[in-house]
Amino acid sequence: MLENTSRTDIETLGEFGLIEHLTSVFENKNSSTLKGVGDDAAVIKNGEHCTLISTDLLLEGVHFDLSYYPLKHLGYKAVSVNVSDIYAMNATPKQITVSIGMSSKFSIEAIEEIYAGIKAACDAYEVDLIGGDTSASKQGLIISITAIGEADEKNIVYRSGAKDGDLLCVTGDLGGAYVGLQVLEREKQVFLANPQAQPDLDGHDYIIGRQLKPDARKDVIEFFKKTELKPTSMIDISDGLSSEIFHLCSKSEIGITIYEDKIPIDPTTYNMAREFDFDPTMTTLNGGEDYELLFTINPADYDKVKNDPNITIIGHCVPRSEGVHMISKSGNKHALKAQGWKAF
Amino acid sequence: MLENTSRTDIETLGEFGLIEHLTSVFENKNSSTLKGVGDDAAVIKNGEHCTLISTDLLLEGVHFDLSYYPLKHLGYKAVSVNVSDIYAMNATPKQITVSIGMSSKFSIEAIEEIYAGIKAACDAYEVDLIGGDTSASKQGLIISITAIGEADEKNIVYRSGAKDGDLLCVTGDLGGAYVGLQVLEREKQVFLANPQAQPDLDGHDYIIGRQLKPDARKDVIEFFKKTELKPTSMIDISDGLSSEIFHLCSKSEIGITIYEDKIPIDPTTYNMAREFDFDPTMTTLNGGEDYELLFTINPADYDKVKNDPNITIIGHCVPRSEGVHMISKSGNKHALKAQGWKAF
Repeated sequence: MLENTSRTDIETLGEFGLIEHLTSVFENKNSSTLKGVGDDAAVIKNGEHCTLISTDLLLEGVHFDLSYYPLKHLGYKAVSVNVSDIYAMNATPKQITVSIGMSSKFSIEAIEEIYAGIKAACDAYEVDLIGGDTSASKQGLIISITAIGEADEKNIVYRSGAKDGDLLCVTGDLGGAYVGLQVLEREKQVFLANPQAQPDLDGHDYIIGRQLKPDARKDVIEFFKKTELKPTSMIDISDGLSSEIFHLCSKSEIGITIYEDKIPIDPTTYNMAREFDFDPTMTTLNGGEDYELLFTINPADYDKVKNDPNITIIGHCVPRSEGVHMISKSGNKHALKAQGWKAF
Repeated sequence: MLENTSRTDIETLGEFGLIEHLTSVFENKNSSTLKGVGDDAAVIKNGEHCTLISTDLLLEGVHFDLSYYPLKHLGYKAVSVNVSDIYAMNATPKQITVSIGMSSKFSIEAIEEIYAGIKAACDAYEVDLIGGDTSASKQGLIISITAIGEADEKNIVYRSGAKDGDLLCVTGDLGGAYVGLQVLEREKQVFLANPQAQPDLDGHDYIIGRQLKPDARKDVIEFFKKTELKPTSMIDISDGLSSEIFHLCSKSEIGITIYEDKIPIDPTTYNMAREFDFDPTMTTLNGGEDYELLFTINPADYDKVKNDPNITIIGHCVPRSEGVHMISKSGNKHALKAQGWKAF
């Protein structure tokens, strides 16, 4: 069944290339399908309202390691990751479905822990759990969540609306989730080498929290509403700043210049990156899993964001022909690469 | 992490009990959530229209065996299973999302086969593929599909509307998918014992097709629309006739009596069940995966269904206190048991 005369490895296309390749032959037939594959969420028109749909698959051994991942945090994160995609469309998540596959090694109490985390996230984001599926799994834990959101058509922000001259903004700070993961991996290795050793997580609360229990930026969408600010384009940072910048550039047909000294990084992230001998800036560019929002605004809206402590302007849009660059702290211009986190 | 002082095996609750147990603490907060957990699909209100959401997880080794499952059929079936849940609400599926996890043993050509089946199903059911996720998997092939449907609120049929005296109807015929699976399993064992042996599938096209490439009953929903027939309750047959009857009884607070000689079974299903030494009736009651529709109608609507070759009246609703029974061919009354297919 799996042998073909022609055989091409998945790695040759990469995740985004694979999705594009597989979905390019599909054509939308229903007039209610406003936006299909290619943004943070799909958009379905229902009269004046739109329904937004986003889905993610989280797999043990690929997206999380149960040896250091508390099940409750995992449930919370699985919801955060999905509602983050709805916020990235400037929409409000309203419902989720949760499908879980688990092996018989899981007790009901263990699954209750996952659901306790899902419940905490449902409360935090004010979404309803409306359905799903549970199944036995022969090999580990599988969590598939679909988030359903709501927005007026005129308020939806796609990846494709950025214009030359727009300002590029990011919320919060970057790189923490990646460095937090490195601390957890390091302590796991110490534990495997010496099971009597106690994990040394002291002083790493912030970065470990960024990895284990990220919060989607509900507050930022509420800020946009309050200040009547509509970004020209937006995406959430799941794969790393660099990769997301390339998505905005590609969909909006623009170039972007960012400034290294503007990229927000928490001191604990910075110091820990140094301890691991990482370049802290590379950590913010390629780390991923921060679930912050990256968006562009019309320069006329500068006053609305300039004093907000949650938002940092890190660059601006330039014509497509100028490409994607970072001006380093020393003033040199470097071409950026779209690395980010790859699931293959 | 997984050790708890208290440990209860999942098997003690079963799939439906587990879902109920886990979701009972969740309360719906959004007024747009008309129906959450507990029917074939969830219902979200958007102005005059409703959006219906259903999701299913298909796992290698649990729901399918790649040693005899053609990948294209698998893609088709994964969509059928999901849109069937939308039809079971008397609604029209419009969109799907598809998330796939797969190991690196899969080539791009193999995944293309799955997507070719998904595309064929999208064309057959007139639904749009609007999103999803692909990921590496350490756990074999994983397919998670969410179907999104549309209906006017007044047309939606829940599991809960059946009344004493209503007629119980089923579409198509039952048991074929289960017997087809037994043929495939038998030929797999023959092959494992002697890899030179050729599979003997001659004359089993119908039942194997019922297992490998089931069609959801789009035609029946269209028939309801044309004849202005609105069932009082409805469910699709994924776990077996018996199990689905118990769902209708529980949600509608009724009892049901069915007649063994009325249960539709194809002659090839009947003969093959005999060859396997199964009771053909038990095959229809507990086999599952037929994806036919089971529904109740007001007796006043009898004329609308009586001559339809796709619909068979197999019983009627009685008061809850009378319970759930089958009148056998010999005229004896047997209490039915809710068995059906269990994923745990």
